[in-house]
Amino acid sequence: MACRHRSSTTTLARLAKPARLTPRLTTQPHFQSQVASAVRCFSSSRPSQLKETRCQQGKFTSETYPELKRDPRYGQVTKEHVDFFKGLLGTESAVIDGVTNENATDDIEPFNSDWMRKYRGHCRLVLKPSSTEEVSKILKYCNDNKLAVVPQGGNTGLVGGSVPVFDEIVLNMARMNNIIEFDEVSGILTVEAGAILEVVDQFLASKGYIFPLDLGAKGSCHIGGNLSTNAGGLRLLRYGSLHGTTLGIEAVLPDGTVVDDLCKLRKNNTGYDIKQLFIGSEGTIGVITKAVIQCPQRSKAQNVALFGLESYEAAQQAFREAKGHLSEILSAFELMDGGSQALVRQVTKKNSPLEGEYPFYCLIETSGSNSDHDGEKLQTFLEDVMEKGIVVDGTLAQDETQVKALWSWREGITEALGHLGGVYKYDVSIPLAEMYQLVEDTKARVEEAGLLGDTDEHPRVEKVLEPFVYEWISKRQGSISAEHGLGLAKKKYIGYSRTPAMVGLMKQLKDLYDPNAILNPYKYI
Amino acid sequence: MACRHRSSTTTLARLAKPARLTPRLTTQPHFQSQVASAVRCFSSSRPSQLKETRCQQGKFTSETYPELKRDPRYGQVTKEHVDFFKGLLGTESAVIDGVTNENATDDIEPFNSDWMRKYRGHCRLVLKPSSTEEVSKILKYCNDNKLAVVPQGGNTGLVGGSVPVFDEIVLNMARMNNIIEFDEVSGILTVEAGAILEVVDQFLASKGYIFPLDLGAKGSCHIGGNLSTNAGGLRLLRYGSLHGTTLGIEAVLPDGTVVDDLCKLRKNNTGYDIKQLFIGSEGTIGVITKAVIQCPQRSKAQNVALFGLESYEAAQQAFREAKGHLSEILSAFELMDGGSQALVRQVTKKNSPLEGEYPFYCLIETSGSNSDHDGEKLQTFLEDVMEKGIVVDGTLAQDETQVKALWSWREGITEALGHLGGVYKYDVSIPLAEMYQLVEDTKARVEEAGLLGDTDEHPRVEKVLEPFVYEWISKRQGSISAEHGLGLAKKKYIGYSRTPAMVGLMKQLKDLYDPNAILNPYKYI
Repeated sequence: MACRHRSSTTTLARLAKPARLTPRLTTQPHFQSQVASAVRCFSSSRPSQLKETRCQQGKFTSETYPELKRDPRYGQVTKEHVDFFKGLLGTESAVIDGVTNENATDDIEPFNSDWMRKYRGHCRLVLKPSSTEEVSKILKYCNDNKLAVVPQGGNTGLVGGSVPVFDEIVLNMARMNNIIEFDEVSGILTVEAGAILEVVDQFLASKGYIFPLDLGAKGSCHIGGNLSTNAGGLRLLRYGSLHGTTLGIEAVLPDGTVVDDLCKLRKNNTGYDIKQLFIGSEGTIGVITKAVIQCPQRSKAQNVALFGLESYEAAQQAFREAKGHLSEILSAFELMDGGSQALVRQVTKKNSPLEGEYPFYCLIETSGSNSDHDGEKLQTFLEDVMEKGIVVDGTLAQDETQVKALWSWREGITEALGHLGGVYKYDVSIPLAEMYQLVEDTKARVEEAGLLGDTDEHPRVEKVLEPFVYEWISKRQGSISAEHGLGLAKKKYIGYSRTPAMVGLMKQLKDLYDPNAILNPYKYI
Repeated sequence: MACRHRSSTTTLARLAKPARLTPRLTTQPHFQSQVASAVRCFSSSRPSQLKETRCQQGKFTSETYPELKRDPRYGQVTKEHVDFFKGLLGTESAVIDGVTNENATDDIEPFNSDWMRKYRGHCRLVLKPSSTEEVSKILKYCNDNKLAVVPQGGNTGLVGGSVPVFDEIVLNMARMNNIIEFDEVSGILTVEAGAILEVVDQFLASKGYIFPLDLGAKGSCHIGGNLSTNAGGLRLLRYGSLHGTTLGIEAVLPDGTVVDDLCKLRKNNTGYDIKQLFIGSEGTIGVITKAVIQCPQRSKAQNVALFGLESYEAAQQAFREAKGHLSEILSAFELMDGGSQALVRQVTKKNSPLEGEYPFYCLIETSGSNSDHDGEKLQTFLEDVMEKGIVVDGTLAQDETQVKALWSWREGITEALGHLGGVYKYDVSIPLAEMYQLVEDTKARVEEAGLLGDTDEHPRVEKVLEPFVYEWISKRQGSISAEHGLGLAKKKYIGYSRTPAMVGLMKQLKDLYDPNAILNPYKYI
C-alpha cells in the first residue's frame, strides 16, 4: 500500500533515534535496510519541496486508506455514554468531550493524530483513567455497549497503532504514571503503564539502576506502550527483550476482568505465563495498567570504537570476534555501509574519524563496571581484528566528546538521507548471513529499472520495491516488522512473515479475549 | 498432602544439583527454604534406615493419591490403536507395546516411573516419534479417539509431570534429538526437543558458545522438557529466563495442528507471541517439537569467592554491592546460613575455608572474558565490603581446585542434610527482604510445637508445616513453585500463588487448545 509521507528534517531526525539497534545495518541513500522504521518515508529529491508539502499532514486515515470502512457493529458515542464516563472519572480533565461540546476539537486533536501526523482519526471522546478500577469499568461499559476503544500511551509509534481510525474512544493512560515500588536490593520495579520511560529511567539512575530498554522516543513514550509493542530499542543486545525482563503485568480485558499477573519474583512457575500475551499485542486483547520490571545495575563505564572493513563477510567476522573479546560488556554493534558514511560526510562537511574510505564501517559500544578493564578489552579486540586483517582501520574514543562524535556517524545517517532525496525505509529482520544481500539485490533491481538518480516517477519506485522486498524477506524467514509492530500500516503484510495457521491461532486468541472486537479495531491481525 | 519419600544419599546428591540458583538461601537441617526441590523428601534421622526403606519406591501414584480416579472420558488403548501406531511409526523400537505383549512391562517401566521413583503410572504403550509430522499424526489420532497422552522428555522433573498416572500413552521425545542448525555468527541454535541439554551444550562449547541454561540433570534432561517446565537453573542470574532466550518454538496441538513459530530472529514483532504459552505449560496444551535458542558466547574465565556475614541484612547489602562491583560478570550469588555450613563441616569433616563461624555465608561466582580483570574486580569488591563491615571474612579461589572446593560448601549441603535427619524442602520464591524471615518463623513454630530434635512423629511435623508455609508465602505474594512447576505434586496448591481469576484464565486457555483434555491429565491446573 502506498503511504506517501513527506517529512521535514526534524521528523527524520526523530525517526532516526529508535533506529540504533544491534546488529544493525545502514546502507546507501535510496535504500535503508534493517533501520528501524515501519513507515516508508518518501520525500522529493529536492529539499526545497519539503516545506511546501507539509499541508498534506493533516489527512484523515480514512482518506489515506479509503478501503477501510467504519464497522457498523460498533455503537456511536452519545451524550448518555459521555455522562456515564463523567460520572465515573469525576474530574473534568479526565474526560475530553467532543461529543456534546463542539469546541473540544482542538483539545482532542493531539489524541487523534500520531506524532508524525501520518495517521489521523475522527475520535470525539478521550478518557484518561487514573486507576485500574476505572480502566476496568470503562472497558466493561464499552464492551457492554459495543463502543470501540483505542488504548493510547505516549503516542510515539510508527505504524498508526495508537490513534483511532474512525470514532473509537481514546483510552489515554497518561494519568496512570506512578512509580509504585522499587526494591533497591533486587532491582525490581513496579510501575504504572502511563509512566514515561525517561522519567522512570532517571528515577532508576538515582538508585544506580537502569531500565532495560532505551529508545529515541523515551521522553514521551509510556512503559505500557513499550510493553504493548514489545519495543526492542537500544539495550536489547545487552539486556534482552521485554519478554525476559518483564516479571509481571496487570492488564484489563475488554469485559473488565483484571488480569492480575503482577508477580515481583524472578522465578515463578505456577501455570501458563499469560502476561506474555500482552507483550507485543498492541492493545488488541487488553489494556496493560501496571508492570513489574527486572532492572539491571547501571554501567559505570562506556567505551566506543569505530572501524572500517573491506566486506560484509569481514563485518560478520568482526561481530563474532567482538562477542568473543567483549562478551559481557558489548552493548552495541552497528554496521553501516560506505555509501551511508559518504553521505554523512557530504551533508555534515565533517572529516571522517578514519583516514581511508571503506565499503563498511562498524561502531562498537561497550558498557561495563570498570572503564580501564573495558578500554583494555576493546584495545585488545581492535589489535586482534586488525592483526587478523578483519578490520582495516579503527579508532577508539578517548573521552565523552569523542564518544558522541563517533556515535554521530551512526546517528547522523537518517538526517543526512533526508537532505538528498527520497527514502524508502523498511523495519525488517533477516538472518545475519544474508542481511546485506537484500541491499545488493534491491540495488540491482532498482538500477535495472533505471531508477537510480533523479526521477519524479515515485509510484514506479514503489512498484519496483514492493512486493519484491517483502517476498525476498519472506523467502529467508525474515520478519517484515522487526520492531515497530503491525498497527495499521502492516496489518495486511503479516502473511509474509507468518503462516496462515499461525495467523489463525492469533485470531483465535483475539476472539477469546475480545469477542466483540472493541479493542483497537482495523489493526494488527 | 503427605508424600513421604525416603531417599538414598545418591538420590539426594542428584537432588542437590538443580538447587544452585541465585540469590539462593540454604538453611539449617530440618528446614531448607528456597532450595530447589518441589518434592518434600523425608527420611529417618538414622542413616542406617535409608537402604532398608527403598522397597517402598515402586508404589503406584494411584495408590499414593487414592483420591485420583481415572477419568472415564478417555478411551482404553486397544490392539487396533496399537496397530495404527505401528503402521505410522514403522520401526519396532518406536513403539513399546504392552497392550498386546504382556512381556513388555519391564521395557515400559522406565517410562512409567520418574527418576526418584516417587511417581509411577500404569501406561502400557510408549510411542517414540522421530518427526514433527509423526507427533502431529499421533496427537490427532489420540484426540479423535480420546486417548490421553503424557509428553515425556528426559523424565528428570521433580513434580511428577512427565509420567502417567493411569494408562495414558507416553509420547517420548528421545528420538527427536537432532541439532538442526547453528549460526556461528549470531549464536542462534535450532534444535529438536528431544536433544539432551548436555549434548547440546558440549556441541556449543566446541563453537565457543554456551546454552543459556544449566542444571544438575543436564546429562538426561531434554531441551523440550526444559522449555515445557521453564527451567531456571544455574545460569538464570546471568542469562535470564527461557522466555527471553527462546526465539522460536515449533509445537503440535492436540488436534495435530503444527504451531510454526520457529523464528530465528532476535527481533520479530508480527502478532501475538504464542510460543511463550508453551514455555512452562508442562505439556498440557501442546507438545514442543523444536526450538530456536539465542546462545551467548562462552565465558573464558571463572572466579569464585566465599565470605562470612553477621546478618541477613548484611547479606542483602552484599548482594547489592556485588551487583554494583561485579555487574556484568556476576554469575552466581549463593546465600547459606551458619547451620547449613556447620552441618557440612560435621558430615564431611573438612575444615572451613574461613577461620571463624558466621551466621551467614555467601558464595559468589563470576564468569567473564578476562580472568585478570574479573579477579581484580572481585578483589576490589571484597576489599570494599570488608572495609564497610558488610563482610567479616572472605576468601578468593586461586585455581580450579579451590573453585571446586569452595563450591563444595554450597553443593554439599543437600547431601549433608540427608545424613542427619528428616528434611522437608520447599521450592519457593519470596521477595528478598523477607526471605530469611520464613526460616525464622518456621523454626519458631517448629520449636513451639516441641518438634526440634529427634522424633518419629512425622505426620505431626507435616501438620505444623502445612499449610503454614504456603499461607506464609501467599501473604507475601511469593511463589509456591519457583522452578519445578506444578505437575501432579502442586496442582492443588496453585491457589496460594494465583488468584481464582488467573486460574480461570488458565483453564480457559487449556480448554481452547485442548478441548478434549487429552494432554497430561490430572496435573498442572
